[in-house]
Amino acid sequence: MIKPQTLKGFRDFLPQEAKKRQYVIDKLKTVFETFGFEPLETPVLEYEEILTGKYGEEGDQLMYRFEDNGKRRVAMRYDQTVPLSRVVAQYQNELPTIFKRYQIQPVWRAENTQKGRYREFLQCDADIVGSSSPLADAEVIATAAKALKALGFNDFTILMNDRRVFSELVNNGSVSQNEMDLAVVAVDKLKKIGEEGVINELVKKGLSSDRAKKVFDLIRNQEKTDTMQDITLYLETQPELKAKTKFDPTLARGLNYYTGTIFEIEIEGYPIGSVCGGGRYDSLIGMFTGRQIPAVGFAFGFDRILEAMEALNLFPKDLANSVSKVLVTIFTEKTKQQSLEIVSRLREKNINAEIYLGEIKEKNPLEKQLKYADQKQIPYVIIIGPEEAEKKIVTLKNLQTREQKTYTFEELLPILQS
Amino acid sequence: MIKPQTLKGFRDFLPQEAKKRQYVIDKLKTVFETFGFEPLETPVLEYEEILTGKYGEEGDQLMYRFEDNGKRRVAMRYDQTVPLSRVVAQYQNELPTIFKRYQIQPVWRAENTQKGRYREFLQCDADIVGSSSPLADAEVIATAAKALKALGFNDFTILMNDRRVFSELVNNGSVSQNEMDLAVVAVDKLKKIGEEGVINELVKKGLSSDRAKKVFDLIRNQEKTDTMQDITLYLETQPELKAKTKFDPTLARGLNYYTGTIFEIEIEGYPIGSVCGGGRYDSLIGMFTGRQIPAVGFAFGFDRILEAMEALNLFPKDLANSVSKVLVTIFTEKTKQQSLEIVSRLREKNINAEIYLGEIKEKNPLEKQLKYADQKQIPYVIIIGPEEAEKKIVTLKNLQTREQKTYTFEELLPILQS
Repeated sequence: MIKPQTLKGFRDFLPQEAKKRQYVIDKLKTVFETFGFEPLETPVLEYEEILTGKYGEEGDQLMYRFEDNGKRRVAMRYDQTVPLSRVVAQYQNELPTIFKRYQIQPVWRAENTQKGRYREFLQCDADIVGSSSPLADAEVIATAAKALKALGFNDFTILMNDRRVFSELVNNGSVSQNEMDLAVVAVDKLKKIGEEGVINELVKKGLSSDRAKKVFDLIRNQEKTDTMQDITLYLETQPELKAKTKFDPTLARGLNYYTGTIFEIEIEGYPIGSVCGGGRYDSLIGMFTGRQIPAVGFAFGFDRILEAMEALNLFPKDLANSVSKVLVTIFTEKTKQQSLEIVSRLREKNINAEIYLGEIKEKNPLEKQLKYADQKQIPYVIIIGPEEAEKKIVTLKNLQTREQKTYTFEELLPILQS
Repeated sequence: MIKPQTLKGFRDFLPQEAKKRQYVIDKLKTVFETFGFEPLETPVLEYEEILTGKYGEEGDQLMYRFEDNGKRRVAMRYDQTVPLSRVVAQYQNELPTIFKRYQIQPVWRAENTQKGRYREFLQCDADIVGSSSPLADAEVIATAAKALKALGFNDFTILMNDRRVFSELVNNGSVSQNEMDLAVVAVDKLKKIGEEGVINELVKKGLSSDRAKKVFDLIRNQEKTDTMQDITLYLETQPELKAKTKFDPTLARGLNYYTGTIFEIEIEGYPIGSVCGGGRYDSLIGMFTGRQIPAVGFAFGFDRILEAMEALNLFPKDLANSVSKVLVTIFTEKTKQQSLEIVSRLREKNINAEIYLGEIKEKNPLEKQLKYADQKQIPYVIIIGPEEAEKKIVTLKNLQTREQKTYTFEELLPILQS
């Protein structure tokens, strides 16, 4: 016998969970399409060289990589931004000049599972390729915000910054490139380790205590760039996004391909960090095309969104019910034909219905069938005994109220369709 | 520069194709849920021992297998029936006594791509676990047929057989087990190689010519089992499935885990083989649980369904359009604000709308924007020039008819919502 088990960091999604995931995916898709994003799918496996060297050293380590049967070095999707960049380069002539795409597929990272992280998880991305207008930055941020609204999140903050806030300090000579490289890494941890922690880390890396404080202060006191000003202005025109944005000069973001605007979204009342992060990356696609193509976008952390929705009770209650709205029971071999007809007619009317497929006991035939419906949380049960069969009616039992009443098929429909 | 390319047998799905795939998936899901099937998702990677030895020798060879960073032997999903069997064993106490699940996820097989086969492809399965009633066999067949109807296929044939048709001939002594093993493999190729081909193959394997003909005749003249009779009767009660079933004693099916009913569905007018195959497998789950749990189900060959739909012209025409129903253009910096407001109000009304994100030229600002809309097949364009901005109206241009007319926002809605 083979032990039935899943790999560490990998998950099965049984129906209850799968339905919640589908609910969120459907909402996200609808909003993405409202903003004019089109779907894209890329393969799970890529040539290794497509993916390596794009995510920093840690990325290369955590990537699932192997040699396939044909001796090719291959790697499993690690994010959706690098595959998008490859696609843009590969199909340049087929894609519109401004390419807006969304992508909702799993990615794999061999993370330390003790930190509560998964090795297979879903990413939900929306990106605009081919526009360097700040309006594009604003549009992706508005898309993310609108998606959160559609899921029921009313209270969230969009933290914004611009990678050029850092490079400006280097360009004007206030901070050396080396100091800035160290500072960006340290400042990225500000929320976890606090101001003192950031200073300590910089001191550990060789800066004097005074200099570390100075560099941190310089960063903290940087002002909005013009681009950020433009984006904020646009977002303020969206009534529901008013006062949701906050400039945070200490926002750094981990990935090193960002070149301009960066942002993260935090949910108020669920302080687990950001549920969404993104920004502008104007140099990544150039690694595949040889010419720079600007791009901006974001990814939702799907698992965190689900956690937050669970915590804030944002899932519709009826998601907990069975997919089937009604179980049609079988009373005896004689009435079976009527039961089959009813289930078929209900389906014809697009009512999710199932027929009982277990063994029918002669004594107390309904007992087990009602138990099955209760176990699966099917809201209604239809009973067709010899009397009902003869009169061409059915008994409908509401399993919540335990009430039951007889109806003709035509009377039944509006109740089950509601 | 890194060459942007995909692995042989792996595909990107650009928006046009991705939309068609999504259309089919949505239709299948709706039908599966009408029949009371619930969604399930399993991981891409499994412990190798979960998958190996279940698909025959060829399966083990074509499977993507490797050692992960933690020195575990892992394998990529090869079908969805074995993972389902693992799930049923692993969560026995959480699942309903009769578990009806559907699963729509990709699988990987390192096939010879010269035969037009893909190495990553989608499978769409629906299975009923825990019922040995012939009604369950009939229900899965009806589900498959209903799904094809929903996709627009009106003319198809359900070929049915029962694995016990073969075992009966062994049990009653007419054919030896060895002869039958060879015959099943040979008969499985009947459609490709013809009757003579089957006889030749059996002769090659050591049977005399007379004996080969005799064995083939015995198989061909077998009669329906009682179960098959029951299933056919049930299917005949579904008006739309009347006369769609055909008993075919030479139907064999490749996979060796089938134990009872087997079936395939062929599309009339698209003779490329079956688009759907399935059957009863009452021993597979026992490999993980130690006790037998009956199961019956099927998988759609997603790529073949798409090909057939393309050939028979079954996709709705508007799938070829852009996701965006309308492009809101920007005329000048001065009217930009009005354009932003309009796009935001359209989205508020759930109309898929995008704003032009390219550079706005001072001379002839609309030329490039209209070209972009044409390229993306966006059906409508909204123009807000200085005059429109002042009068609080918009010009709507239909890109198919090239007609344009001015409207108030309220007048615009019904046109774009239709």
